[in-house]
Amino acid sequence: MSLLITGSIGIDTVETPYGKVTDVIGGTAIYSSLAAVPYGPVRLVGVVGEDFPDGALAPLQSREIDLAGLERRAGSKTFRWTGKYEGAMNEAQTVDVSLNVLAEAGAKVPAAFADSRTVFLANTHPTLQRDMLAQVRDPWTVVCDTMNLWIENERASLLETLAKVTGVILNDGEARMLTGVVNVIEAGTAILSMGPEFVVIKKGEHGAILMTADAVVAMPALPTREVRDPTGAGDSFAGGFLGYLNTQPTRDLAVLKRSVARGTVAASFTIEDFSIRRLVDLTREQIEERVKSFLEMLRVE
Amino acid sequence: MSLLITGSIGIDTVETPYGKVTDVIGGTAIYSSLAAVPYGPVRLVGVVGEDFPDGALAPLQSREIDLAGLERRAGSKTFRWTGKYEGAMNEAQTVDVSLNVLAEAGAKVPAAFADSRTVFLANTHPTLQRDMLAQVRDPWTVVCDTMNLWIENERASLLETLAKVTGVILNDGEARMLTGVVNVIEAGTAILSMGPEFVVIKKGEHGAILMTADAVVAMPALPTREVRDPTGAGDSFAGGFLGYLNTQPTRDLAVLKRSVARGTVAASFTIEDFSIRRLVDLTREQIEERVKSFLEMLRVE
Repeated sequence: MSLLITGSIGIDTVETPYGKVTDVIGGTAIYSSLAAVPYGPVRLVGVVGEDFPDGALAPLQSREIDLAGLERRAGSKTFRWTGKYEGAMNEAQTVDVSLNVLAEAGAKVPAAFADSRTVFLANTHPTLQRDMLAQVRDPWTVVCDTMNLWIENERASLLETLAKVTGVILNDGEARMLTGVVNVIEAGTAILSMGPEFVVIKKGEHGAILMTADAVVAMPALPTREVRDPTGAGDSFAGGFLGYLNTQPTRDLAVLKRSVARGTVAASFTIEDFSIRRLVDLTREQIEERVKSFLEMLRVE
Repeated sequence: MSLLITGSIGIDTVETPYGKVTDVIGGTAIYSSLAAVPYGPVRLVGVVGEDFPDGALAPLQSREIDLAGLERRAGSKTFRWTGKYEGAMNEAQTVDVSLNVLAEAGAKVPAAFADSRTVFLANTHPTLQRDMLAQVRDPWTVVCDTMNLWIENERASLLETLAKVTGVILNDGEARMLTGVVNVIEAGTAILSMGPEFVVIKKGEHGAILMTADAVVAMPALPTREVRDPTGAGDSFAGGFLGYLNTQPTRDLAVLKRSVARGTVAASFTIEDFSIRRLVDLTREQIEERVKSFLEMLRVE
């Protein structure tokens, strides 16, 4: 039941009303891998530059995250992001971003990872997403994420990627931008018509909407009093969703709903502290305890 | 099990991307009464002017809504609101508003209504809300709504009202404005400290959050593809919530959660068509059928 995750690995500097962290490990692949690993081993594929600090990988090495697909590229620099959250902290303001190695060739998937059952193509150039996917033999489930940059500038390539995946996880703004449709349910229907079997539209503190050809399921987020750093919440959602999904024999609606609940809970942990701090030691027991109270909250009887 | 509802009764003109209605019946008391009446008789208290069109009350007269508390005041004019929704229709733009009779003395509660078990003080001046409440002998449950105008200009009076009610239903912007707290859960806690036993914070298309001293419950809205006119959604939520609650022997958490589900479903009907059209003939059977699919959507197993 192997899960391959590929996406960005970066060095983040983040400031929120609760404090600031400087030069900490971040990126879509890092958050999603740490959120997925309580469910079983994760195979990480990504590229960093030669400036990547040695000790930064320690939190991954202490978990069942296989780093054989992590390339440290000589002569290149690691992706860097500096962001800031203010007020209700609904949206990150990008203070500075340097794509660096992310603007170069993608990572190579190790031969030993080619039999992966589930693949998460976290946000990167849609052509790189397909290159990556082509190196995996016959995956059961493939899910991708995307962002405004590719929706605006690489639409044709993105549509090719969407035609090849089982599911898409993206946020409401991206769903609207991709489809040109304001109503988020109609946007979901339009995305399903592009190929995927399911779509999950994330709405941050307002929860998520799961859609298949036959169903529309809205779920709230976990009510959280103290959001210290929202960075990585969406990637943690995807990681929790995929980590759980990969443990399942099928992906019927009941399974997908349970996966959304796990994604929701993963995100609720991430935002409680800066960077990856809250995920580093997170156990499946801690997750399931919170899932239990989440489902109890949703129970109306 | 009598339910008294008091609030504004108005003449609305509303334009949305789906069309326009001119001089139709509206107001908080109208929407909430129509949303509550499928659960049992409603006692309506409110004031209109002598310009109020005779036929406009027909939809209320065809239901179990007792209009003995409806005053048609000679020499006064009915409250009028002209509004517009654009794009995602999340927020009404007020094009024109004339308080008219709402700026005068409040309505008198008929002696026959003084034994009401449940009272909904829909949005009006907080001093009028207390005047109204003083005319009811010993109600089991009293819920109020409010708005930015009173939060900003009549804070002391509003706090007096909040100290006298069992519950408050308001939207997230109002909750933040009332408390000065950005995080909506913290805002809810601050409101509970003002007196009420429960608070429901409405978030429009993103659902609602119910809070008591011991519980925080987030619920999504019903995913809706075609929102034709959001006018009255929040008042319908309150009406469905209170109509159901009034049928119950207690107001423990399980009851309040079921009431939120009914409020959510009431709002989902209202927004499907202009003005009160969708509510006029709505039956309890139609409501319960939709409640069933709402609860099925929330079931994760």
